[in-house]
Amino acid sequence: MKKLYIGVDLGGTNVRSGLIDEEGTILAKDKRKSLPKISAEAPLNQIVDSINAVVASGGVGFGDIIRIGIGTPGPLSAKEGTILNAGNLPHWKNFPLAAKVRERVGVDVYIQNDANVYALGEWWKGAGRGYDNFFAMTLGTGIGGGAICGGKLLTGFNDNASEVGHMSIDRNGIQCWCGQKGCLELYSSATGLVRITNEALINSHVHSTLTEYRGRGDELNSQIIFEAASNGDEFAIEMFDTCGYILGLGIVNVLNILNFQRVAIGGGLADAGDLIFAPAKRALEERGFNTFNSEVSIVRGELPGNAAILGAAKMVIDMEVIN
Amino acid sequence: MKKLYIGVDLGGTNVRSGLIDEEGTILAKDKRKSLPKISAEAPLNQIVDSINAVVASGGVGFGDIIRIGIGTPGPLSAKEGTILNAGNLPHWKNFPLAAKVRERVGVDVYIQNDANVYALGEWWKGAGRGYDNFFAMTLGTGIGGGAICGGKLLTGFNDNASEVGHMSIDRNGIQCWCGQKGCLELYSSATGLVRITNEALINSHVHSTLTEYRGRGDELNSQIIFEAASNGDEFAIEMFDTCGYILGLGIVNVLNILNFQRVAIGGGLADAGDLIFAPAKRALEERGFNTFNSEVSIVRGELPGNAAILGAAKMVIDMEVIN
Repeated sequence: MKKLYIGVDLGGTNVRSGLIDEEGTILAKDKRKSLPKISAEAPLNQIVDSINAVVASGGVGFGDIIRIGIGTPGPLSAKEGTILNAGNLPHWKNFPLAAKVRERVGVDVYIQNDANVYALGEWWKGAGRGYDNFFAMTLGTGIGGGAICGGKLLTGFNDNASEVGHMSIDRNGIQCWCGQKGCLELYSSATGLVRITNEALINSHVHSTLTEYRGRGDELNSQIIFEAASNGDEFAIEMFDTCGYILGLGIVNVLNILNFQRVAIGGGLADAGDLIFAPAKRALEERGFNTFNSEVSIVRGELPGNAAILGAAKMVIDMEVIN
Repeated sequence: MKKLYIGVDLGGTNVRSGLIDEEGTILAKDKRKSLPKISAEAPLNQIVDSINAVVASGGVGFGDIIRIGIGTPGPLSAKEGTILNAGNLPHWKNFPLAAKVRERVGVDVYIQNDANVYALGEWWKGAGRGYDNFFAMTLGTGIGGGAICGGKLLTGFNDNASEVGHMSIDRNGIQCWCGQKGCLELYSSATGLVRITNEALINSHVHSTLTEYRGRGDELNSQIIFEAASNGDEFAIEMFDTCGYILGLGIVNVLNILNFQRVAIGGGLADAGDLIFAPAKRALEERGFNTFNSEVSIVRGELPGNAAILGAAKMVIDMEVIN
């Protein structure tokens, strides 16, 4: 019988779990609400229930599970298994997540930054297969990043590496909550796209179906802008172009530091396809260092919904080597 | 008898060599002009003569030398031992440096980016000792960078990692020769300091001893600006402040990607001390991510003149493990 692991992906909206064997086959899956705003216990219960669900539907027992890996928003301490102070998990200040889950299920639990396990998953089974120097980004409410350098996950000294959303690409840009100005996620996340669109709508010369949202910015979202762009609205297309081009500038910056061969982009905004990928590739072509970027490709993540649970499992599978 | 290695540091002006034992003791040193503008043969001869000099003055023979490491400007292929196309080495397009030197001295030769071996040297014997996640930068004509991640040199997929001089911190900034706009080295290198000073001198309201260089920008250099600042010239101090603050913004960006514990700054401009370190530290404090930077220090390199030769030797010492 193959060795079995569980990978969990804790997000602000959903928690997903997978029962996964050492070769990366997903034998059972579960998805349910994560409920992080309700209490400290609520998301913990959801995680435990989700783990129970894949064990049950996989027809196995907890004695068959070697280890559990959880990808969660950070900042966190992977070494301590503790969530430090994540914006999306308001009831979990210095919360010992790994110990709490271990207590409830009786299996060893390890945690890691969600974007890092996303990168591990895409590297293992998706867009990063075969690339020992690989970067992955998720474009959602914010921007997450994860790096594989020389065939190993880059974690940094306290598991906070690859925070590419807070790379400034405009030192005089608008203030970010992180302390920096002009951070990439202010422009190239779903939130950033909405922000720059609202800002541009102030100009009364704009012709667009989106002008109906002028002064009602709270009602605008990235899906609405996407639909307008898909219907040929030039203004909406231009907003995606700005968002994607700046994404490409961020990629050039990370490329010059990490010298990767391939970057995979996932998260909700990646569904916009060439509306965002074409300008990102144009930025790489126009602004990249020639000798570096000749072999670099920007591609879409291949495992939406599965990358993070696969990566969380991969993290605890690779511990075999250490133990 | 201890095992012996030679570390070579090829710069645009000088070539330095050191006869170094496995513990990092420098037993003999040589420094001479590198002559890269004259011909392809000239700098090669200087390297070989410099290597011969440390062998002779160390009282050993080539049979005693296990390997030679050379740090050189890139881009290069460490794997092939070839200089690809370095701005400072105009006669060396696709030049097989490692093979050429090996042919002349009969010892195995390996090459690596100069800023990478600088970082290795500071990590081994200088400001980075004991920090498994460490970054080093050299501020000269340009800006070089080198990273130790999890106790290993970060090289990337073709040895072009850590090109921090070409990280953009201003997407709408001035055009850099690399293709990008607003690159860090346009502001925070010695050349960058002179550039922003000349630019500021255009303003006729400037009061400074440096106004005599207005319209004679070619005669200005970083040493002159340093002397003015040291003599209390407020304008010159402000120029260093801008240069150092932007350096700090660049450090924040790299920190958010690599999550290092310490960064060491070397190169000529580091001699300006607090004129440049104080504003860099202020930028880290004002713009850094709180949870990340609490344990991060910005320090001066400790091994001027020796870091790169030590690092070049360390690179070939560590090959013992591989062979």
